[in-house]
Amino acid sequence: MSEESSVGSGGVAELFQLLRDGVPRTRAQLAKATGLARSTVAARVEELMRLGLVSPVADAASTGGRPSSQFALNPGGRVMGAVDLGASHATVALIDLTGAILVKSTEPLDVASGPEPVLTRVVAALTSLLERTGRSESDLAAIGMGVPGPVQHSTGQPVNPPIMPGWDRFDVPGWMLQHLSAPALVDNDVNLMALGERAVAWNGAEHLMFVKVATGVGAGVISGGRLLRGAQGVAGDLGHVRVARGADVPCHCGSRGCLEALASGPAIARVLRAQGIPADGGDDVIDLVKHNNLEAIQAVRQAGRDIGEVLTTSVSLLNPSVIAIGGSMARVGEHLIAGVREVVYTRSMPLATERLAIVHSAAAEDAAVIGAGILALQHALAPETLHRIVTA
Amino acid sequence: MSEESSVGSGGVAELFQLLRDGVPRTRAQLAKATGLARSTVAARVEELMRLGLVSPVADAASTGGRPSSQFALNPGGRVMGAVDLGASHATVALIDLTGAILVKSTEPLDVASGPEPVLTRVVAALTSLLERTGRSESDLAAIGMGVPGPVQHSTGQPVNPPIMPGWDRFDVPGWMLQHLSAPALVDNDVNLMALGERAVAWNGAEHLMFVKVATGVGAGVISGGRLLRGAQGVAGDLGHVRVARGADVPCHCGSRGCLEALASGPAIARVLRAQGIPADGGDDVIDLVKHNNLEAIQAVRQAGRDIGEVLTTSVSLLNPSVIAIGGSMARVGEHLIAGVREVVYTRSMPLATERLAIVHSAAAEDAAVIGAGILALQHALAPETLHRIVTA
Repeated sequence: MSEESSVGSGGVAELFQLLRDGVPRTRAQLAKATGLARSTVAARVEELMRLGLVSPVADAASTGGRPSSQFALNPGGRVMGAVDLGASHATVALIDLTGAILVKSTEPLDVASGPEPVLTRVVAALTSLLERTGRSESDLAAIGMGVPGPVQHSTGQPVNPPIMPGWDRFDVPGWMLQHLSAPALVDNDVNLMALGERAVAWNGAEHLMFVKVATGVGAGVISGGRLLRGAQGVAGDLGHVRVARGADVPCHCGSRGCLEALASGPAIARVLRAQGIPADGGDDVIDLVKHNNLEAIQAVRQAGRDIGEVLTTSVSLLNPSVIAIGGSMARVGEHLIAGVREVVYTRSMPLATERLAIVHSAAAEDAAVIGAGILALQHALAPETLHRIVTA
Repeated sequence: MSEESSVGSGGVAELFQLLRDGVPRTRAQLAKATGLARSTVAARVEELMRLGLVSPVADAASTGGRPSSQFALNPGGRVMGAVDLGASHATVALIDLTGAILVKSTEPLDVASGPEPVLTRVVAALTSLLERTGRSESDLAAIGMGVPGPVQHSTGQPVNPPIMPGWDRFDVPGWMLQHLSAPALVDNDVNLMALGERAVAWNGAEHLMFVKVATGVGAGVISGGRLLRGAQGVAGDLGHVRVARGADVPCHCGSRGCLEALASGPAIARVLRAQGIPADGGDDVIDLVKHNNLEAIQAVRQAGRDIGEVLTTSVSLLNPSVIAIGGSMARVGEHLIAGVREVVYTRSMPLATERLAIVHSAAAEDAAVIGAGILALQHALAPETLHRIVTA
């Protein structure tokens, strides 16, 4: 009959969602819980085992040579690749079906050298991690990747990324699939930091903003439990919002008064140089603050207030329960966050801030790679994916 | 067995989602398409018919007195109640399972008279509409209601609503259930305007902001296809974001420089009165603009710029594809929206605005009541709801 093609996968997602809790179940129990026909359950369990997502469980009650009749999630069966590409580094990791990091490595890598050289190194790093853990390429269920620029999430293509020459509209998932035969999901690195931060410190938080303060300033936003990406994939791009105080400060984007021109690491260093204090960039600012340089502390505090001004509008618009401040400049300690809190708590409506936590990132430098693993895991375990791979 | 309770509803949502397309199907076709056992399909179809969501379809191939063997969505079977409560009016409507308005009425009603008097009138209005269309209370599948204040969506309780004395934490769904025996979903009116606007003019838009400019200023935000509500249900509350230009203008909230103190109808009237032009409120401003009063046109244009300033940050944060401007002040015509466009297109990053439409609301005064119907419909047709009512 003409409906045959849709018959093949009926119930597979429902079955797997049941099994994700790790509790072993028999085919009869699975049929009862889902209402699926016994023959359908048997076929679906076979498919899930073939995909390495489910495995038979040693059956305590079984006697003699009978095969096991119970099945459960197979956490070690398949792994996700997780990649955090920064401006000048790549962190690569493998995570298991429960979201735990199995192994991780970081190497210096210039993202501006272009997609093919960079991705070749990424594939080599992932292959090396697979070897180190005694796995093969076919164990890779999916790959999550964060890049330092805007990404069209549906295609995984970077879109006009300012610090990634040669990457505009490059088909990252297509290239990766040719070289590692696993689907790759690509997102902006700050979006993945938000996912990673939530997993590490705010499990279950539905409304969380991650603000990265480094060479640039940007945000990843989780609202209603989901990442916001926006129509062109540039949601959270707060670096070029205008701050009233800085109306005459030029920004590298060609505009004036952008948050990034006032509150990024290089911007704070520029403020200090104007006062005759030598500071080449964000790292020097951090050093000065750690040595209690008063001007540096004041400049960092002011940068926090400028960030707070933009976040006040964000708090009104999104009503988050957590704002986590991360990125390299978060290492200056409490002075930056104190400036953020000062403005946000003063200027926001009471209802929007009565339970708002403004905190340092707990995931710190692992935020993006953990988030990349979660992105891959969400894809690998999504009902649509299961549906598609079972019917393929 | 102990899993018996979860057996009762397995597959009902999957079945109904299939039938929502209106195409008639036999039990055998439904079993094939879902993988459910034939006996399960038969029981689920009975449940869906009992709920009035599905009905038998006259079977062209059937001969003699055999009962029909095909089933499809029953669009006229049950209806949703839709309620838009404003500061001084209530609009009440019935909509069918496809989302079309069947009947609608509006009456003046002071929301400040408190929840019980207001809701008593709402119940009377809904009952009257049911009678006029020859239906009974039991035909009501769910009720959607918009109110002019913040709402905790999970409980349907207004939270510190400034213009709704007596409504704070009032259990609206509980009260409605006692009087109309249908579940009521409550939300902020501007959120529902966003849902209504999308249904009327931007079907399928995933990233849409609705900005209401009236006595107050607020926004409803759809991102990734869903309404954003925030941790306390106050997402979109842009009325008290500070605008740099107005640092010395006091707001009724106790702060200074709020968007609402600069760009609402009463705020524009105040600006005109300071220039010696008589204007009591927003309606007078609209009259003056329609008579080409230059000062009124300039004041409206400046209000548009102030709104644009706050929306620029919103555009960076959310990357919407549509911003619809509604509320009573939208009736001033192009001057308000011209001010909004001027600032948003000048100050935003190119990628965020290259496909951004800033337009007048097409749903206009029906936006909230249409959105309320959609909220009710989403609830009535949600898999969780079907699951719950079938297992109850």
